[in-house]
Amino acid sequence: MANIAFIGTGVMGAPMARHLAAAGHDVTVYNRTRGKAEATGLAVADTPAAAAAGKDAVITCVGNDDDLAQVTLGTDGAFAAMRGDAVFVDHTTVSAAIARRLAAARALSVDAPVSGGQAGAENGTLSIMCGGSAAAMARAEPILGAYAARIVHVGAAGAGQTTKMVNQIAIAGVLQGVSEALRFAQASELDLAKVFEAISGGAAQSWQMVNRWQSMGEDRFDFGFAVDWMRKDLGLALDEAKRNGAVLPVAALVDQFYAEVQKMGGARQDTSALVRRLPK
Amino acid sequence: MANIAFIGTGVMGAPMARHLAAAGHDVTVYNRTRGKAEATGLAVADTPAAAAAGKDAVITCVGNDDDLAQVTLGTDGAFAAMRGDAVFVDHTTVSAAIARRLAAARALSVDAPVSGGQAGAENGTLSIMCGGSAAAMARAEPILGAYAARIVHVGAAGAGQTTKMVNQIAIAGVLQGVSEALRFAQASELDLAKVFEAISGGAAQSWQMVNRWQSMGEDRFDFGFAVDWMRKDLGLALDEAKRNGAVLPVAALVDQFYAEVQKMGGARQDTSALVRRLPK
Repeated sequence: MANIAFIGTGVMGAPMARHLAAAGHDVTVYNRTRGKAEATGLAVADTPAAAAAGKDAVITCVGNDDDLAQVTLGTDGAFAAMRGDAVFVDHTTVSAAIARRLAAARALSVDAPVSGGQAGAENGTLSIMCGGSAAAMARAEPILGAYAARIVHVGAAGAGQTTKMVNQIAIAGVLQGVSEALRFAQASELDLAKVFEAISGGAAQSWQMVNRWQSMGEDRFDFGFAVDWMRKDLGLALDEAKRNGAVLPVAALVDQFYAEVQKMGGARQDTSALVRRLPK
Repeated sequence: MANIAFIGTGVMGAPMARHLAAAGHDVTVYNRTRGKAEATGLAVADTPAAAAAGKDAVITCVGNDDDLAQVTLGTDGAFAAMRGDAVFVDHTTVSAAIARRLAAARALSVDAPVSGGQAGAENGTLSIMCGGSAAAMARAEPILGAYAARIVHVGAAGAGQTTKMVNQIAIAGVLQGVSEALRFAQASELDLAKVFEAISGGAAQSWQMVNRWQSMGEDRFDFGFAVDWMRKDLGLALDEAKRNGAVLPVAALVDQFYAEVQKMGGARQDTSALVRRLPK
């Protein structure tokens, strides 16, 4: 069992920190808004540095690149206080650039964005996409098992983040396809349940179709992962594409479609609200 | 067991006709190119009318709206020769308009486009989306069981065709999403097998990702259902959308992307060749 600092106890981080404690680890938490740290019922530190000092592992799950730079490299950040042999794991979805920058500062670093959403964090069934050295992974993997159903070491530093971008790019196309298919079925006055029965077992099948076809047809968009967050993630992918040269016509278009959904009041609805901008 | 006329013994129709014969039905075939009819080893008629005369059921699987109109309503077409109580089933992917026109001419008609491709026809595991009256379905369903794994009666005449369009619209978005995700992963120099392991069990999953990720990554596009046929199907969907009012921005864009793939020599490659127009 390890002494662990967990920095960032939001809707994802809080249940992850509790899973670590439930697994028997000694967990100290830090959160910018202190009340959220206290709500975990775990030991609370005043700064990222105070949380990180002397620990075996430091885990972050914050908002974006700037937040991550602040809690690691900023004033009272974790990195200056960490033991030389401690492992660092970041679960925030951020740029590959900052993941590589942190790994350059600390060799024992893993960029480890997750998928599975709030439900996955609460149930301890997240999928974790990891980038980093074999040595860093060997240290991180037993700890991450407390809240993961699947841990894949994809490659070197940054590979976890670019894999998460691959995931979001695929989802953008899939959800637009499902959205257009659904609106077309409605315009054709088809029975949506019968259509689903007819096509969901074949080449048009997707997780999104299986899990969102019915709720999208009923205008329900309360599944957690918000349009605002998807725009952040697509923005990271589109930025990275400027570096790696990938061409993303539909991901870029869907990002703009999500901008329309934000203007329609859908910013906090889940990603399947993409269908809302298609007229009924 | 029934006396059945099967009109159109191409790559789909020929194995379907053979499955009917193997199930014990008495099958007479007709094909515009007579050699393809003879290659089935079944009884061959000289015209659609000659094939259809006196039969319990007449099934068509031809190329497009014009072909279907010719073999049903044209000179020596099947409809004038059919018994009043015979059931008509069309497997061609055509417009909903002609499906409704044929059902208006013969109440015992079922529009029944399939999915599952050439392999599904050969293995007798097609999914069939059916539109028509309950009386027509009651007659058709036992016959279709000879080559179907799934038969869904979606609704009235035309509903089979519009459901097939829903299917193709969803596939267009999914395949573009998978294509962009794959090219982005390649541009990021990720291990494609590791990426697949990391993301194929979650919200980005699709049949296309599971079945085409590896082959697309290896530039293999030999899975049968051709780009030319997908353009025909998307054209039907875009035409129908002018009638039902559905808005299909990405299906329309992907149709144009497929036009690029045709120009690149991909017309006879399978639909996953969509990835080819994205630069590596």
